[in-house]
Amino acid sequence: MNLPSKVKIKEVGPRDGLQNEKAFIPTDTKVEWINKLSETGMDYIEVTSFVHPKWIPALADAMEVAKRIERKSSVTYAALVPNRRGLEGALEADLDEVSIFMSASETHNQQNINKSIQNTFPVLKEVVSEALSSGKKVRGYLSTVFGCPYDGRVPLSNVQKVIDELFDMGVYEVSLGDTIGVANPKQMDMVLSQLLQEFPAEKLALHLHDTRGMALANTVVGLMKGITVFDSAVGGLGGCPYAKGAAGNVATEDLIHMLKEMGIETGIDLSKVLTSAKYIERELGKGLPSKQLQIWNSAI
Amino acid sequence: MNLPSKVKIKEVGPRDGLQNEKAFIPTDTKVEWINKLSETGMDYIEVTSFVHPKWIPALADAMEVAKRIERKSSVTYAALVPNRRGLEGALEADLDEVSIFMSASETHNQQNINKSIQNTFPVLKEVVSEALSSGKKVRGYLSTVFGCPYDGRVPLSNVQKVIDELFDMGVYEVSLGDTIGVANPKQMDMVLSQLLQEFPAEKLALHLHDTRGMALANTVVGLMKGITVFDSAVGGLGGCPYAKGAAGNVATEDLIHMLKEMGIETGIDLSKVLTSAKYIERELGKGLPSKQLQIWNSAI
Repeated sequence: MNLPSKVKIKEVGPRDGLQNEKAFIPTDTKVEWINKLSETGMDYIEVTSFVHPKWIPALADAMEVAKRIERKSSVTYAALVPNRRGLEGALEADLDEVSIFMSASETHNQQNINKSIQNTFPVLKEVVSEALSSGKKVRGYLSTVFGCPYDGRVPLSNVQKVIDELFDMGVYEVSLGDTIGVANPKQMDMVLSQLLQEFPAEKLALHLHDTRGMALANTVVGLMKGITVFDSAVGGLGGCPYAKGAAGNVATEDLIHMLKEMGIETGIDLSKVLTSAKYIERELGKGLPSKQLQIWNSAI
Repeated sequence: MNLPSKVKIKEVGPRDGLQNEKAFIPTDTKVEWINKLSETGMDYIEVTSFVHPKWIPALADAMEVAKRIERKSSVTYAALVPNRRGLEGALEADLDEVSIFMSASETHNQQNINKSIQNTFPVLKEVVSEALSSGKKVRGYLSTVFGCPYDGRVPLSNVQKVIDELFDMGVYEVSLGDTIGVANPKQMDMVLSQLLQEFPAEKLALHLHDTRGMALANTVVGLMKGITVFDSAVGGLGGCPYAKGAAGNVATEDLIHMLKEMGIETGIDLSKVLTSAKYIERELGKGLPSKQLQIWNSAI
């Protein structure tokens, strides 16, 4: 089994994790949680989303969170930006990086961004261009790569076309999203085999949801294919507000635990991640899907 | 990705699933549940354990369950037997097959069977011999192959030795148990690579628990190594009463779902399995870990 010796984890809990929570988490709590995450050894945290509060009320305090967190020089702090206005927020808060997003499937893109795929390109192109000229790197999220709640399986040629466009705009990495957690390991193997003929493994990341329990299995396939960047959310928080049943990113602590057991380094302290998971679980007042957290809870 | 086209699933929910439940499930419920399982297309169900009720009170009604279930000719009905007395029960109920069990690690074997590994062999040898002479096939479970809650990692030479002994006794298959759900995919790859040098893939099965969320990832590695028999429990029920935190067999419906998506045939109807999972979840009166069940529950 050919595996990388080191993997980079990008924590998306404060953004992808919290954006779907019905309860508004107080700003103080968000800030304290992100500060805890900064102490775990993580070197990348997506802290919020500068999207209009009408769409994601849970993150209406994006600016305050971004400005109030204690920033460590070893950590890259990023935010999701849907458009120029969002980018301006991220620039005002002087975050280290921004992320843009769109979907590989037409209907999900329409539902999520309110534009066709074709009409999304010029908007994002402008955002990326302005971010780059402001000295900020840009990451690209591509949703529904492995399946769409509306359109089903997405033709790989469409996926390739959108990735091409994103790289042409100037994003340094595309994170392939299994937005509704439908990818299976055989599909993962086929999709990556195909995409890696066109794009280098170093420029692709995996963003997996565990809706059907296959996120870690798909991670293993990704590792075997040479992928070394994985998104995850502490506690297994998250989901997509526009895709019913799309519960939970893969839990950061379950991912780190597996990688550690497989001898793959992440540089992150599992017990500190668990403490931060326990913190947000308590604040949310409900059990989270993370297995490591469940083991911890049952041991108390 | 080299995968088998067909896989056999052995349902252990009524035995491994229920044995750890604190509440006694009424015999009528067990019988009705097993009858439902028989209608799903499964061809192997382990229905109970003929162990002394002092040790597993949850299965104190083994004989009544075994005698009262409606048996389909397409299904093999099996029971776990710890000793001759247990075997006599299984023979009286005229079950199709029996299973014996022991551990690869000394302390778990001692805790579970109250004997050293060496002293377990003659007892099981007698059971297997009597079962075979009564015309019953015997399956062997080997616990703690990938790690023991007391002894930690188990030397592979010990594992091989016990498997050798089990085959010498006359068992037709050894089910390799990740009793406490600690196996990781890299370890799975290494252990199977080693064992398959000595034993044919057709004579080995995998019995995975999902305590740390790695059961499906380990399943994929098993499939890639040519393993085609997998144990699972409807709902993700189960655990080991002697190993703290060892929660849940891999859920049959999550396993079938993944295999189906990967184009691997099981002959089992997923929606019927889900109905049977919902039935036992309702009877137990608590949420079960199965992801398919959670999706179903959230859709209602």
